Amino acid sequence: MKFYDCAIAPNPRRARIFLAEKGIEVPRIEIDILNGENLQPAFLAINPRGLLPTLELDDGTRFDEVMAICRYFEELYPWRPLLGRTPVERALVESLQRRAEFDGMIAGSEVFRNQHAGFAARSIPGGGDAAIPAIPALVERGRQTLVRFFDWLEERLSRDAYLVGDTLTMADITAFCAVDFVAWVDIHVPAGHAATQRWYAALGARPSAQA
Amino acid sequence: MKFYDCAIAPNPRRARIFLAEKGIEVPRIEIDILNGENLQPAFLAINPRGLLPTLELDDGTRFDEVMAICRYFEELYPWRPLLGRTPVERALVESLQRRAEFDGMIAGSEVFRNQHAGFAARSIPGGGDAAIPAIPALVERGRQTLVRFFDWLEERLSRDAYLVGDTLTMADITAFCAVDFVAWVDIHVPAGHAATQRWYAALGARPSAQA
Repeated sequence: MKFYDCAIAPNPRRARIFLAEKGIEVPRIEIDILNGENLQPAFLAINPRGLLPTLELDDGTRFDEVMAICRYFEELYPWRPLLGRTPVERALVESLQRRAEFDGMIAGSEVFRNQHAGFAARSIPGGGDAAIPAIPALVERGRQTLVRFFDWLEERLSRDAYLVGDTLTMADITAFCAVDFVAWVDIHVPAGHAATQRWYAALGARPSAQA
Repeated sequence: MKFYDCAIAPNPRRARIFLAEKGIEVPRIEIDILNGENLQPAFLAINPRGLLPTLELDDGTRFDEVMAICRYFEELYPWRPLLGRTPVERALVESLQRRAEFDGMIAGSEVFRNQHAGFAARSIPGGGDAAIPAIPALVERGRQTLVRFFDWLEERLSRDAYLVGDTLTMADITAFCAVDFVAWVDIHVPAGHAATQRWYAALGARPSAQA
């Protein structure tokens, strides 16, 4: 098995924290996205979308998408469940994970990619196709969405210790990675969001945060 | 149990086709998004995001997101699996379903919402927050992404009868709904994409296509 990874990228980090929390070790292959290695023919032969993370099984089967990779490992190694313990909890984790991804991770990506000179010709991750230019208006849309993201986090975390009840799940991992990612564009947990600050400090103190 | 639905909207339709394929009947409550019923206080009390579909369980638990709702039903009613039959197949369905959603459904939404006068002040689905104006440049980005979507469909469907092997899965359902949705903006399966045409006709002939 091979896990195509990129140490600095926020989406591979979601999967790495997931694996660290479950105590699963997978051989990693680092792809240097800063130098465009993910858009070179060698990696495009592995993943034509140029996206990380990508998992390769021993029989050669490959797939991308963080949640597909995490769900595969959750099924193979059901201990320490991070996608929920019951059907209802799994539905809530999926719904909230996705909200954290859309309103946090993807909104952050819109801010980052559309104001960063290095992505002026590539406003959508991945390659292999016509260049799609940056859209500066997405910076403001992303910023507004992130206000909503942080308000939602504070509201949920004022009720419970984690996003889905009393235990860490993938919803927290995605939200935590989104908070760290948007710090790249100097957006931070608002002052006064005490519940989110408490939650963020707790996740940051776990060994998995270094994954 | 209650399924908050909207007959004309493409995302609720994904869940309706999924339920029809599994033979599951759930009481439906129609929400009139054309007249903004999803953004009125009565529905925002049910789902503060104003999004459809939303599922409400008998104990009052509610969650949104098509995949969370479908996964919940797949667990409760495992017959006729539509999210994959093995861990690897489930990973592939999740990965490809998501690609169909991003490159098909969401790209189509970018084209539709950002050129439609009715959404000039709401470029992101749902409500309850500051208005986010339409971004006309997203129309062209969406159109380019849809070219990639249709090329990908043709490449996959030239190899196999369905997106994941020899049987219908949620990846097909999402892609099929995306194809019908983008017809609203007069984008269609390209002439000469024979495998996609064959697949589209086969899905359209199933009773579930009327759901």
